[in-house]
Amino acid sequence: MILIGERINGMFKDIREAIQNKDPEPVKYWAKRQQEKCAGYLDINTGPTVEKEDQPAVMEWLVKTAQEVSTLPCCIDSTNPDAIEAGLKVHKGKAMINSTTADQFKMDIYIPMAAKYNAAIIGLAMNEKGVPKSASDRIALAMEIVVNCDMHGVPMEDLYIDPLMLPCNVAQEHGVEVLETLRMIKTLADPAPRTTMGLSNASQRCTNRHLINRTFLIMSMACGLDSAIADVDDEDTLDAVAAANLLLNKDIYCDSFLKTFRSR
Amino acid sequence: MILIGERINGMFKDIREAIQNKDPEPVKYWAKRQQEKCAGYLDINTGPTVEKEDQPAVMEWLVKTAQEVSTLPCCIDSTNPDAIEAGLKVHKGKAMINSTTADQFKMDIYIPMAAKYNAAIIGLAMNEKGVPKSASDRIALAMEIVVNCDMHGVPMEDLYIDPLMLPCNVAQEHGVEVLETLRMIKTLADPAPRTTMGLSNASQRCTNRHLINRTFLIMSMACGLDSAIADVDDEDTLDAVAAANLLLNKDIYCDSFLKTFRSR
Repeated sequence: MILIGERINGMFKDIREAIQNKDPEPVKYWAKRQQEKCAGYLDINTGPTVEKEDQPAVMEWLVKTAQEVSTLPCCIDSTNPDAIEAGLKVHKGKAMINSTTADQFKMDIYIPMAAKYNAAIIGLAMNEKGVPKSASDRIALAMEIVVNCDMHGVPMEDLYIDPLMLPCNVAQEHGVEVLETLRMIKTLADPAPRTTMGLSNASQRCTNRHLINRTFLIMSMACGLDSAIADVDDEDTLDAVAAANLLLNKDIYCDSFLKTFRSR
Repeated sequence: MILIGERINGMFKDIREAIQNKDPEPVKYWAKRQQEKCAGYLDINTGPTVEKEDQPAVMEWLVKTAQEVSTLPCCIDSTNPDAIEAGLKVHKGKAMINSTTADQFKMDIYIPMAAKYNAAIIGLAMNEKGVPKSASDRIALAMEIVVNCDMHGVPMEDLYIDPLMLPCNVAQEHGVEVLETLRMIKTLADPAPRTTMGLSNASQRCTNRHLINRTFLIMSMACGLDSAIADVDDEDTLDAVAAANLLLNKDIYCDSFLKTFRSR
């Protein structure tokens, strides 16, 4: 299970202010802290308040600042292709692009970009019509992304399909479809694409958000989830992931398995 | 998700002493408390220290004592058919037999007994050769139990197949097989048999037992688990089950979903 730390995102007040003030310290703080908390990637998102024309420069600054103090690769998260490419240009190591949808005009931009920069890429199971309800409709969109990656030479181990969980207070019927989609993704190709999920979506405007996110993370791991964009600062989430790794036989049991998980 | 409270079992010191002293209070305490904690059944087991010839009388006393203070049905848990039948004879409501294996001589005892007393029955995916490792071998044994229930007119909604989780410190490779078995059980008949699990098995002689049990419970719910014999006194387990019920769209979301789950 690869945890992608969600915290360097302009939607959080401290990061928003850091961007406004060109203050690197909050970015460095979360880059270091999330690495200590078992993150495998740092998600980097300028947030909704940065003007479009400023996004490439801000993304470049965020990526450089985070990688000054952390050895982790970044998951470069924007709806603006220029911002994504600006991040990729200065990134050290193998980045991840977050994200393309199954819309052809987006795949035509982002998938060749993944190939050019040898980056992994997240593919969302949606298109201009929105997020389909059924697992089979989600899978049809995932398959389009698989085919486009194949055409451009992006290997399946670099493609992370996100079946797109929606908030359980308004779209409760999507949970079982997302779990079924996770299982079906593993049949789309051999080797299969990987899977990921923006976990906090599950609990938007819900109470007990950490509990809901953590529970859905564990349920999704049982169905083949390989990675998730998550709050790695929640200790209960790390404990649950450590236990699920044992139960899926991905980590060898030892009595100090919680400590062992954190020490990697 | 039906939680079967595990606590009225002679392997626990207070219940063992209650049996020795014919003291009904600890049995009544756990019967009431587990009902308050969302249990749907009370597991009743004389424990390993009661002599075989005394087991029927002790089981009868435990069932009667528990049902004096609780409206819950009992899951009558013994390897002694005479003890099971003694419990069934005095039981009020629809009991559950815990359990038969897929051995023909056991199915020939317990499945007609389930039919005679209109009881539900747990069928363990094992036989005299032990617990198979692969999901497909577990499923072959489950199918034998399905067929035998069908022959005796025990409906599928009264059959709870237990795929048998083994401790993750010594049999780690079983976890993924158990999850796969849970999924496959739902394809064995239409309507499908139900599923259950003795959850504490997962963490025998492990550290962080509640965490391991709770994590495997949630993973199993994602794969179709309908019930579990569990420690309903663990609040984190109840919270996780409440959240999983929401995410599986089995309970309607409301902001007070944790309280709502407990108030039923």
